[in-house]
Amino acid sequence: MIFDRVWLDANLCTMVPRDGDPLGAIEDGAIAAKDGRIAWVGRRADLPGQAAETRACDGAWILPGLIDCHTHLVFAGDRAREFEMRLEGASYEAIAKAGGGILSTVRATRDASEDALVNAALPRLDQLLAEGVTTIEVKSGYGLDLATEARMLRAARRLPGLRDVSLQTSLLAAHATPPDYAGRTADYARHVAEDIVPAIAAENLADAVDAFTDSAIGFTAEQTAWVFDAAQRAGLRTKLHADQLRDDGGAALAARYGALSADHIEYASPEGIAAMARAGTVGVLLPGAFYFIRETHFPDVAAMRAAGLRMALATDLNPGSCPAPSLLLMLNMGCTLFRLTVAEALAGVTTHAAAALGLADRGALAPGLRCDLALYGISRPAELCYWIGRNPCLGRVVAGR
Amino acid sequence: MIFDRVWLDANLCTMVPRDGDPLGAIEDGAIAAKDGRIAWVGRRADLPGQAAETRACDGAWILPGLIDCHTHLVFAGDRAREFEMRLEGASYEAIAKAGGGILSTVRATRDASEDALVNAALPRLDQLLAEGVTTIEVKSGYGLDLATEARMLRAARRLPGLRDVSLQTSLLAAHATPPDYAGRTADYARHVAEDIVPAIAAENLADAVDAFTDSAIGFTAEQTAWVFDAAQRAGLRTKLHADQLRDDGGAALAARYGALSADHIEYASPEGIAAMARAGTVGVLLPGAFYFIRETHFPDVAAMRAAGLRMALATDLNPGSCPAPSLLLMLNMGCTLFRLTVAEALAGVTTHAAAALGLADRGALAPGLRCDLALYGISRPAELCYWIGRNPCLGRVVAGR
Ligand SMILES: [Zn+2]
Ligand SMILES: [Zn+2]
Repeated sequence: MIFDRVWLDANLCTMVPRDGDPLGAIEDGAIAAKDGRIAWVGRRADLPGQAAETRACDGAWILPGLIDCHTHLVFAGDRAREFEMRLEGASYEAIAKAGGGILSTVRATRDASEDALVNAALPRLDQLLAEGVTTIEVKSGYGLDLATEARMLRAARRLPGLRDVSLQTSLLAAHATPPDYAGRTADYARHVAEDIVPAIAAENLADAVDAFTDSAIGFTAEQTAWVFDAAQRAGLRTKLHADQLRDDGGAALAARYGALSADHIEYASPEGIAAMARAGTVGVLLPGAFYFIRETHFPDVAAMRAAGLRMALATDLNPGSCPAPSLLLMLNMGCTLFRLTVAEALAGVTTHAAAALGLADRGALAPGLRCDLALYGISRPAELCYWIGRNPCLGRVVAGR
Repeated sequence: MIFDRVWLDANLCTMVPRDGDPLGAIEDGAIAAKDGRIAWVGRRADLPGQAAETRACDGAWILPGLIDCHTHLVFAGDRAREFEMRLEGASYEAIAKAGGGILSTVRATRDASEDALVNAALPRLDQLLAEGVTTIEVKSGYGLDLATEARMLRAARRLPGLRDVSLQTSLLAAHATPPDYAGRTADYARHVAEDIVPAIAAENLADAVDAFTDSAIGFTAEQTAWVFDAAQRAGLRTKLHADQLRDDGGAALAARYGALSADHIEYASPEGIAAMARAGTVGVLLPGAFYFIRETHFPDVAAMRAAGLRMALATDLNPGSCPAPSLLLMLNMGCTLFRLTVAEALAGVTTHAAAALGLADRGALAPGLRCDLALYGISRPAELCYWIGRNPCLGRVVAGR
């Protein structure tokens, strides 16, 4: 076989477990690409065939391109002033009066053109890509009306034309109650289910439908079910912001709908976690938000392990509760705060992150998968989790180039 | 006056408080340099004189070049394997047997040539500089014998010849008890005081003498006093790793010696803090180490404010308890974890960090000070604290160029 391109003089962290090594590491390995896919992976000495082009990697470690499976990358404005005021002791009322809170992001996003949303998102996207990310998920959720939710998703859909990245979008119209529905959350949830979900699906702008279930400040389980039923009618998979601040049965709800993932899940019960594992719903841990809001209730990682739940890790990049465009930092936070092992953390941004997006064609170094690679100047994969705020990424390969 | 260089079309965060603004912000400002010093700072409209060269900053914010006043930048090896083992549940004994712990860094550092130490430090230094750092402190402390401590300091002293950065060095021979003195900590402390401090001072390799006071795993207050007495005889200022894991009276000890700073101080008492403030000793907060070792006892910031203590923030960059080459991340951690205000955090990496190093010629944008600048693509200074793992630095100026 004549490969399009071969990477040599590299160590591979395949993420295909073998011989008791969950990372499936291959030292002095080689990867060959053909037509944008991985055609061969193994020890360099065993490399068959020839290549049109050869790249020497100088001993770098190659991982599957990282996948950030939960971001709110597209938004207008920032919340730095609110952050500053809060540290000076300002009350929530004072911050709201000064224009802070999620509704300030909604206001700014409603006022922003599609071009403005794209331009605001690009520097944040570039920071993620510079760390080795090759696939991202982007949610809407700061429009809270059909026109703006659609505009956010259209802005997101333009990003892969501007940068080498794969994109999945999620409609998160059920993120908060918009000001025009103040006090009428149920009415808004019905509007999302009856009008927004079908319209977005008809325009084919979203790959999945997401919601924020929270009995105090989000949508009830019942309201979420209306939205998820609408998603199913439209043929869209679901995801859920679940059990972040209290146990509202979000994990079980997500499992009942066969959701791709339930995210946050700090307060999910062992029963909810077991239901997710049975349903194949991935648990997406978001340690950056845990850190930023100074949460003290840890996700029940022991129960997740016991249930065999697939755990992913993501940035949750958003202006209100996690202004963190760094997936490598989440590797460290996942280990440091949640005590994930290095292997669990790395699976969380590769194989399990792919599963959280329903993508079967990526997340590992294996023949037939997309040739999305991230190269790092490190001496062992654990360094990606160990360093805090250091970026050893040497380069990325997207679809074989 | 004819300036060498003028920066225009910039907003200035001078860190010289005025009119109730602790940041001394000047929008649409200008800075002029002459002979490496700041010659003029103010509103652009008021700029007098002419300049040989003009630089347009496109609306960037300019801060004094950041100062990282507490690092262990120079060391050999890394501790990623130990990090990995610990997350897999390995005991301290198992890790020590596998060659982990601080003594593994001591072993690797003793085995490393001066060139090897320089080469290992440079990528870490580059990460700091890329964020806008222009002055760093570097400690020894992984040699624990005269030859290696001197080699570490010589390696550090070579860095400013290789990169545009100012350097201060601290001798930290009293960091831990070396294996060759196992069980004889007092003997080693005497050796540091009687032999190492005078020899390092004679070779003029250190700007200050540091120590790790801890009644359980470090040096007692009495042993620290021997080392500090030796420093004073040699004409060197002192710094102290104090009250990090318990209240050992380190803060008061540092104050008694008129130390430049006492660092960590999570467990320092209000009395110790007040003594520091009276002595002019700066309190250096190290939130990265707090985060990494999962400390839960917060430094008493309220007592520090009440005493008028100057608080600095630094990375503590080191392989064992804070592998974090990011001072911007420490701004966020100082605010998020310790609830510093934005103004306190920014003073912590500028004016107060300069004070923690005894440097009166930098840390603010004011005439007569060194023209060390950091330029950022942000819309307000609070963004430097708000973002997590994002680097908006556009460039640095060191000594006016
Ligand atoms: Zn989210
Ligand atoms: Zn230290």
